[in-house]
Amino acid sequence: MNILVIGANGQIGKQVISQLKDDKEHTVRAMVRKEEQAEAFNKAGVEPVLANLEGTVEELAEAMKGSDAIVFTAGSGGSTGLDKTLLIDLDGAVKTMEAAEQAGISRYIMVSALYAEDRTRWPEQIKPYYVAKHYADKQLEQSSLQYTILRPGGLLNEPGRGKVTTDIEQGESSIPREDVASVIVAVLNAENTYRKAIPLVSGEHLIQEMVQNI
Amino acid sequence: MNILVIGANGQIGKQVISQLKDDKEHTVRAMVRKEEQAEAFNKAGVEPVLANLEGTVEELAEAMKGSDAIVFTAGSGGSTGLDKTLLIDLDGAVKTMEAAEQAGISRYIMVSALYAEDRTRWPEQIKPYYVAKHYADKQLEQSSLQYTILRPGGLLNEPGRGKVTTDIEQGESSIPREDVASVIVAVLNAENTYRKAIPLVSGEHLIQEMVQNI
Repeated sequence: MNILVIGANGQIGKQVISQLKDDKEHTVRAMVRKEEQAEAFNKAGVEPVLANLEGTVEELAEAMKGSDAIVFTAGSGGSTGLDKTLLIDLDGAVKTMEAAEQAGISRYIMVSALYAEDRTRWPEQIKPYYVAKHYADKQLEQSSLQYTILRPGGLLNEPGRGKVTTDIEQGESSIPREDVASVIVAVLNAENTYRKAIPLVSGEHLIQEMVQNI
Repeated sequence: MNILVIGANGQIGKQVISQLKDDKEHTVRAMVRKEEQAEAFNKAGVEPVLANLEGTVEELAEAMKGSDAIVFTAGSGGSTGLDKTLLIDLDGAVKTMEAAEQAGISRYIMVSALYAEDRTRWPEQIKPYYVAKHYADKQLEQSSLQYTILRPGGLLNEPGRGKVTTDIEQGESSIPREDVASVIVAVLNAENTYRKAIPLVSGEHLIQEMVQNI
């Protein structure tokens, strides 16, 4: 499969790229917004695709051409305003869904957030962010795409443990970003994860085993 | 019908209340957030309902009990932050849809904005607001409710003219709030407007005539 990673310059995006870079089964391309980010990926031997989530659906569909699967792991981040939460995390995300449909790409993996589906669990300080993720997920569920929504707990910058669980009552409340990236790679071909939303925290199951048991 | 106006203290809300207050066919109640707003409606002979769009779906369903139709004309307004755009204009609105479904109320009238469905027409400075309205409308279209979405052009604080059009190429770009309120009242019982989105600007047709021809 030819995979397009949207948000390739983000922390999870970079890990997905690095895990897929030398894969024999898949080819990966890095969608980024800035010329200098594109150059950096080029130098690292990864084909970049320049496109902006604030652009049109048509531009995004053009950027996706030739891809078999989309990984959406972009985020406006904590340092920008809530305008970007609305324009990137919500509308930008939904535009990529519409673009994928337009480009005839059906496989779509969304990195969401734990409890994005349940507004009674949204932390007070970042509720507006959860609103954006909630409705992006809703639109994906209402799309025609073969999606998998991953909903990881608190993201950690530490080496992956390779062990996770979807049982959020039993598991921990967090998960290393590297493990999230490994789950993205593991679900790419897993048809049993199509049209499902999967909560994800560190736990006791090997990633392959967890994915098989979805 | 017993009508609940959400955003009753807003400029369009007040006009809807005043047009329905002495109606023989309908009873109207004013949903407001603050005690002093409730008292003001009470004094004016309109039954108030205290509820907060940042509350739970269950609280909103409770507030709706006994209503036959919901009019949503609330807005976070220009003086609050974009957190409220996400929490009120988008999530608050969708919570009232879920609450209406929960309370068994099927008729729902949403005041949206002209071109909310078409992101290529969103004015640059207030794009984030349009994102919120766009996805609130989308959720309503995907709900089980008998909705009518009204999408008025630029809202004017001048007396109503009683004449409007849905032909946005032919009409003006704006419309008095009083005329929007009159259209809300006119569509309440109009089954031909169920599950439709209607653009609305000042034009050459009498309101009743326009509604009949939807």
